[in-house]
Amino acid sequence: MELKNDTFIKALLRQDTDYTPVWLMRQAGRYLPEYREVRANAGGFLDLCRNTDFATVVTLQPVERFNLDAAILFSDILTVPDAMGLGLSFVAGEGPKFAHPIQDENAVKQLAVPDMEKLSYVFNAVASIKQALNGRVPLIGFSGSPWTLACYMVEGGSSREFRLIKSMLYSRPDLLHRVLEINAQAVTAYLNQQIAAGANAVQIFDTWGGVLSDKAFGEFSLQYITKIINGLTKTDADGNPIPVIVFVKGGGLWLEQMANCGADALGLDWTVDIAAARRLVGDKVALQGNFDPMALFGTKQAVEAEVARILAGYGKGNGHIFNLGHGIHQHTDPERVKDLVEAVHSLSKAYH
Amino acid sequence: MELKNDTFIKALLRQDTDYTPVWLMRQAGRYLPEYREVRANAGGFLDLCRNTDFATVVTLQPVERFNLDAAILFSDILTVPDAMGLGLSFVAGEGPKFAHPIQDENAVKQLAVPDMEKLSYVFNAVASIKQALNGRVPLIGFSGSPWTLACYMVEGGSSREFRLIKSMLYSRPDLLHRVLEINAQAVTAYLNQQIAAGANAVQIFDTWGGVLSDKAFGEFSLQYITKIINGLTKTDADGNPIPVIVFVKGGGLWLEQMANCGADALGLDWTVDIAAARRLVGDKVALQGNFDPMALFGTKQAVEAEVARILAGYGKGNGHIFNLGHGIHQHTDPERVKDLVEAVHSLSKAYH
Repeated sequence: MELKNDTFIKALLRQDTDYTPVWLMRQAGRYLPEYREVRANAGGFLDLCRNTDFATVVTLQPVERFNLDAAILFSDILTVPDAMGLGLSFVAGEGPKFAHPIQDENAVKQLAVPDMEKLSYVFNAVASIKQALNGRVPLIGFSGSPWTLACYMVEGGSSREFRLIKSMLYSRPDLLHRVLEINAQAVTAYLNQQIAAGANAVQIFDTWGGVLSDKAFGEFSLQYITKIINGLTKTDADGNPIPVIVFVKGGGLWLEQMANCGADALGLDWTVDIAAARRLVGDKVALQGNFDPMALFGTKQAVEAEVARILAGYGKGNGHIFNLGHGIHQHTDPERVKDLVEAVHSLSKAYH
Repeated sequence: MELKNDTFIKALLRQDTDYTPVWLMRQAGRYLPEYREVRANAGGFLDLCRNTDFATVVTLQPVERFNLDAAILFSDILTVPDAMGLGLSFVAGEGPKFAHPIQDENAVKQLAVPDMEKLSYVFNAVASIKQALNGRVPLIGFSGSPWTLACYMVEGGSSREFRLIKSMLYSRPDLLHRVLEINAQAVTAYLNQQIAAGANAVQIFDTWGGVLSDKAFGEFSLQYITKIINGLTKTDADGNPIPVIVFVKGGGLWLEQMANCGADALGLDWTVDIAAARRLVGDKVALQGNFDPMALFGTKQAVEAEVARILAGYGKGNGHIFNLGHGIHQHTDPERVKDLVEAVHSLSKAYH
């Protein structure tokens, strides 16, 4: 299916575009009243991810409301460990919990790449969303990185300290490497099936890469991300390239290493000076980001000033995809999102 | 009073030493059984900070147990906003709470630099600890940075998202600048009184600087840290220099800017490659850090390997103070701390 708007794909491939494309991490979600409305009549969060119609409807909501240049599959990063049999549930106010975390040698030994059949609901959602989009904008598939998945799998849920997984890292690195190897194989298969189902690009989220030391990041996270990218399908059935984005929250110090991992684009959080980042990565990769999601709590003028600052920082030429530096906050006013998207589109023309 | 061990001060001033000095952030605390013992018979956390005898005893505990090269005042970073009348309390399991957070224009207008008399318990503790140390090792005084104090003052306690203070930053920057200006004046007076009471060096903790965008960090944090350093007493009564350390957690991307703030040394968390950091800052400042506190949950061999890696990263010559990249965790085994201190002292001789 021909894309009517391929600005996002072109920017990822560092080809010329007329303006800077924009999408927002977690753009389908609770900050939208239309999301809250359909959500109110549906079941728990996991049921929603497994419901093809729901995933399709909510993925399209932000695309219909704002002039976004990409859609992203509505799903959760923990679908893969759930399919591994870890028993995922979401406790209100507490986030994800695994009934069977991976905390000892025996649990690590029993861990295996899941049958992708268990994740068919995700691939069905991709196919359904692709059809509903009808070529309007590209569809992004995604997965958590091996390290980020392992954080939840070992800690048993969200963590602020990562004490359990870091204890494993510093006392039994062999066990952790086995978990990461299995995760990498699973994520490769998972993303390839999303691509087969119609994803036009994929993003690997390394939400917790930034809690590692610089040395450990290379060994326990980037190494496995690189492995995944090496194993990904490079083009769709029509020969169109499938670009890969790697986003490491808190990874601004490691951009030079990351630029060699095989990704087409690197995501930047808001702590990075995008001008310096562009100098560092040179012509190797495109850059995505790097607006502070909390700046959407400012005035319309403040939103526009931040957009202008980031566009000017990146400067002239192709290879920038505008985005937030992290997922959008649930209390964000959708009007500010509209201001942001309009400001990116209008102000970026001068740089192309 | 002559210092018997001035290795720490010399390293801060980038003078030659025989080995790399070491101390640990939050070295006096719950991971030590002797701390838990005296703590059990004392009152709440704030009472402890206000109790000169208690502060003296617990400050000396880690110095007595390990071969550390500095002691740090036992206190809390929120003593200053407490003296401003914000009503600090500590709720078990929830951290600090302010009864009167600074969340609107009226509260900002009423905020003022507190009478330092209200903080005399801190200066009394400094004098008492100094006497008890009897010149054994230098005593570090400290304060939170204006931005980090403001985070607690505006949010009303700990935060993961910093939505309230960032909303103020992006919608009413004038209000936030007024809070930061008052904080900077208060911290300047506070540190100068600690120096007058006997502190041999001071550290400014910018625990939350790393949540800012690169531009906002300069404007809302570093600017005020620089102001404070400009206003600090440069020498003690005997003409000995009082070095200043600035530690910005998550500030690894901004080391070049920070090297010009007037500090003698910059603290590094564990995400930074210390070799790259040294190249960036050149001869401008010493560097302190950068061991991942969670690596203390590894084996003795893993602790030694991490120490060796960091020492080799910094390389030959003066100007490195070994430390953790954040406060020590309460569940740390004191034996691993002993391993760390011994490894730093023995392995670092080859670099001096």
